[in-house]
Amino acid sequence: MDQRNFTMLCDFYELTMANGYFKKGMQNDIAYFDVFFRQVPDGGGFAIAAGLEQVVHYIRSLRFTEEDISYLKGKGIFDEAFLSYLRGFRFTGDIWAVPEGTPVFPGEPILIVRAPAIEAQFIETYVLLALNHQSLIATKANRIVRAAEGRAIAEFGSRRAQGAEGAVLGARAAFIGGCAGTACTMTDRDYGVPATGTMAHSWVQMFDSEYEAFKAYCELYPHSATLLVDTYNVLESGVPNAIRAFQEVLLPQGITDCGIRLDSGDITYLSKKARKMLDEAGLPNCKIVASNSLDEFIIRDLILQGAKIDLFGVGERLITAKSDPVFGGVYKLAAKEGNDGTILPKIKISENAGKVTTPHFKKVYRLSEKETGKAIADLICVHDEVVDETKPLEIFDPNFTWKRKTLSDFMARELLKPIFKGGELVYDLPDIQSIKDYCRAEVDALWDEVKRFENPHTYYVDLSQKLWDIKQGLLSAEKHKA
Amino acid sequence: MDQRNFTMLCDFYELTMANGYFKKGMQNDIAYFDVFFRQVPDGGGFAIAAGLEQVVHYIRSLRFTEEDISYLKGKGIFDEAFLSYLRGFRFTGDIWAVPEGTPVFPGEPILIVRAPAIEAQFIETYVLLALNHQSLIATKANRIVRAAEGRAIAEFGSRRAQGAEGAVLGARAAFIGGCAGTACTMTDRDYGVPATGTMAHSWVQMFDSEYEAFKAYCELYPHSATLLVDTYNVLESGVPNAIRAFQEVLLPQGITDCGIRLDSGDITYLSKKARKMLDEAGLPNCKIVASNSLDEFIIRDLILQGAKIDLFGVGERLITAKSDPVFGGVYKLAAKEGNDGTILPKIKISENAGKVTTPHFKKVYRLSEKETGKAIADLICVHDEVVDETKPLEIFDPNFTWKRKTLSDFMARELLKPIFKGGELVYDLPDIQSIKDYCRAEVDALWDEVKRFENPHTYYVDLSQKLWDIKQGLLSAEKHKA
Repeated sequence: MDQRNFTMLCDFYELTMANGYFKKGMQNDIAYFDVFFRQVPDGGGFAIAAGLEQVVHYIRSLRFTEEDISYLKGKGIFDEAFLSYLRGFRFTGDIWAVPEGTPVFPGEPILIVRAPAIEAQFIETYVLLALNHQSLIATKANRIVRAAEGRAIAEFGSRRAQGAEGAVLGARAAFIGGCAGTACTMTDRDYGVPATGTMAHSWVQMFDSEYEAFKAYCELYPHSATLLVDTYNVLESGVPNAIRAFQEVLLPQGITDCGIRLDSGDITYLSKKARKMLDEAGLPNCKIVASNSLDEFIIRDLILQGAKIDLFGVGERLITAKSDPVFGGVYKLAAKEGNDGTILPKIKISENAGKVTTPHFKKVYRLSEKETGKAIADLICVHDEVVDETKPLEIFDPNFTWKRKTLSDFMARELLKPIFKGGELVYDLPDIQSIKDYCRAEVDALWDEVKRFENPHTYYVDLSQKLWDIKQGLLSAEKHKA
Repeated sequence: MDQRNFTMLCDFYELTMANGYFKKGMQNDIAYFDVFFRQVPDGGGFAIAAGLEQVVHYIRSLRFTEEDISYLKGKGIFDEAFLSYLRGFRFTGDIWAVPEGTPVFPGEPILIVRAPAIEAQFIETYVLLALNHQSLIATKANRIVRAAEGRAIAEFGSRRAQGAEGAVLGARAAFIGGCAGTACTMTDRDYGVPATGTMAHSWVQMFDSEYEAFKAYCELYPHSATLLVDTYNVLESGVPNAIRAFQEVLLPQGITDCGIRLDSGDITYLSKKARKMLDEAGLPNCKIVASNSLDEFIIRDLILQGAKIDLFGVGERLITAKSDPVFGGVYKLAAKEGNDGTILPKIKISENAGKVTTPHFKKVYRLSEKETGKAIADLICVHDEVVDETKPLEIFDPNFTWKRKTLSDFMARELLKPIFKGGELVYDLPDIQSIKDYCRAEVDALWDEVKRFENPHTYYVDLSQKLWDIKQGLLSAEKHKA
């Protein structure tokens, strides 16, 4: 597993601000920051949180090397005392976060940091980068997996990823979102995501004929022979040669599990024709794999049109989340502590109403129906509030406060788990298969209306009355100040 | 500099094919592969090649560790003899490539590999990943830089990048494409791209008032104070407080170079108003920096509307190339060598005419006008052809062969440079500033028509008569076979 030191992967202003806090004697002021996002990519109804494991590795390996210190010294703007302080710099604060694989919604904190100001500010860049990247890909993968209606999705995009980690951790996130495996060998070695693959066109071209290439592959891998049939002509050459190789090499050994891959042309038409040819040749167990610039929309259309595909290989449009390649998580100050430990909520106002932050040290409950287990709403509260499941609970829309609803027979579950306490890891990182299973169960607990690709139902993310009142109070006060 | 071993960052099929070539005794068959791309992102007229330095590091550190071997052994499909072979696996072949920063066009090889089949095939995934990622970002950065018409562009996108390398090497590629600097500290430390930055909203919020936050920052960094003025209200609070801090802290020291940053709201309106306020306050040297979801289109519009911006900070839309986030470089077999060393050209045909490959071991000339230095066309030839600048040269469109043109007074320059010879590096990697300067000069040598954002003139990429004849011959032969 990659345990590189990413301390220096920070925006330069994190360092100039840190130096500033240090010189102003503010380095031990306790600050609270929230990570949240404002919009679900692709206009979807929810996102899948991912990347926490990398945040944990980052926090634990946070330290400046002597090389870093001398690089910073060379900039000529940092104090000697500050540089000395950086030599011993560690993260000593607290972090809460939603587990990887959790469906999450705009406006709610998915990670909260409470730490001395320099530490809390400094980790901003990498924490956002890790969560934004993997949440983006897990969310996209989940859309694609849902479009495939039970057919397997393999992640095939390493060569088009945005950098090595785009490939390796993108494949990890894709697995969390529901993919069955990846082509990326390193992700298998390092994260246990099953690696899979077929062959390249060049394999076929390296032999004197397509048939010889196929026969050689079946002899080499009789139990996992998936033949790429579009190097010359799918129906006139590829499929007939594949059938001949299967019949000559596999069937005599009693092997009927095999596959062909279509990588160009009209997949619906070709898959139907190929299916018929394979069935007639006594190869009903031969699977048909399709690849070639697929995404959730194309897969949905292929299935609607009756394409005979058993497994989809999805490359560039998954590994880059091509249709909407940015997950816009932000890192915003939510509170400070006074010298007496009082929590002082902080708000960031904006001309754009959607950019006003929700202040204070918070917690988030997911409220579900007792009978169906389905999620009803998320409720953001002040940290010291407790929701009592045994009593009716009135929730309301924070923008249209006359829209109110009283819940009974509900379950309330806190979404944010303690990850670090006083700088120590207090969370058992789950294995990747558990994360994937949890994600699937949590997505199953959402109503279908929230899962639509277009115009999904907006899931309710409400504020408690106490938090709403505090936010309104700060808004009035800030407006008054300005 | 990152010298990680990315050997295992390969599609799993590279390993199954490698094992296959080994068992079939084909591992020493010499193969030629080309890297080329089919479409310029965003419909542009050209791309900027980048990522070669990372390919060089990859090739030089290519080796399987014992951990890798035992992981592969655990898969149960690889031969013991093959695993032993992998222990000593190194790249022993030849590589030619266009230097980083070169403008490149669809269909022409930007990197050529000649090596024993296993080696040539195996490096596919990482070579494509490195070139695709950085060429994507360098190309996007170059568009944004050109849109800014001489104003500086700073890369600000780490937090929204697709993984750590998306941030770090993306910032490197952005610099090659013309950006002035980056917010990413690691890219400065490791690649010498100047790091720059201002402050976050949280800096302002951590102080009791905006004015105190600004004053503190000016005291700390009198020579590089750029103040973020939109935490509360730009024109009523931010700019007046910034002016007060500049007047109280900087002007008495005789410092007039400073800056403000606008990160929300209508940048055109706010920048004009702010410029007027700053000028009236005796701060004509105060620069105005704008950020907030910018790209080449928004920057062009801001300038057209007379926005008073001196420097643009560009984040997510640059670091992910948001409007078209995939660079579709492919890796295709172009030839094999017979046992006698004869080069046997190979073609990949396709129903889709655009996907037919150009066979053979090739070279590429860039042809330019002697008088203006402007590029006229690129000419792809067979490796043993030599263009003689002293004689007239007839070139023709490979699709519409009646479109012909005879050149005289031209210069011909080979684009592909030898990088590895027999596994040894034979290329001096240029420093990053030289790459950037070269890129700028080469883009200057393109006609403006090729640089339009919409419907650019299609630059000519022609085949020599000899290569065209070979391609047609193979096409007929393959069609005949099928």
